[in-house]
Amino acid sequence: MIRHVVLFTWTAEATAQQQALVATELRALRPLLTGVRAYHVGPDAGLADGNYDFAVVGDFDDAASYLAYRDHPAHRAIIEQTVLPIVAERVSIQYEL
Amino acid sequence: MIRHVVLFTWTAEATAQQQALVATELRALRPLLTGVRAYHVGPDAGLADGNYDFAVVGDFDDAASYLAYRDHPAHRAIIEQTVLPIVAERVSIQYEL
Repeated sequence: MIRHVVLFTWTAEATAQQQALVATELRALRPLLTGVRAYHVGPDAGLADGNYDFAVVGDFDDAASYLAYRDHPAHRAIIEQTVLPIVAERVSIQYEL
Repeated sequence: MIRHVVLFTWTAEATAQQQALVATELRALRPLLTGVRAYHVGPDAGLADGNYDFAVVGDFDDAASYLAYRDHPAHRAIIEQTVLPIVAERVSIQYEL
């Protein structure tokens, strides 16, 4: 199983509405995907200083399922239209579970 | 439930043995902890360029369980002795599942 992790910080200009829309749209992706074991996104809980702002963690059957998610047209559309306009920083990893 | 995520990059000087020891020692922590639903660490799988090097994802019953993990003496010892000597960058988040 492959776990895909992305953490974002948002720009200072990003509104609460824009930030919330990222979560709403990404969660709506799941029924379109295959080979997804778990998919949980959400904003920082405020437990520590210096954290990133938003997390995406998806568990996939294999690398092919992850790559299909990465390249899915509906996912790319969310990235282009909803995520990129408010991203300051993005870091990511995929690792074997 | 609280999910805790940390991503690291290692210094150019970090040896493969040093990197592997981080995973080994963190995995050995789990029996010492309470309120842990899942705890998976591992190195980047090499599926994408520009990724971070190592991931830690822990799912805890609540914020108190996460904070007990964060502050556990055995965890702090691993951070001081095994992680900090090879860390280049560290980013983190905690979010509600």
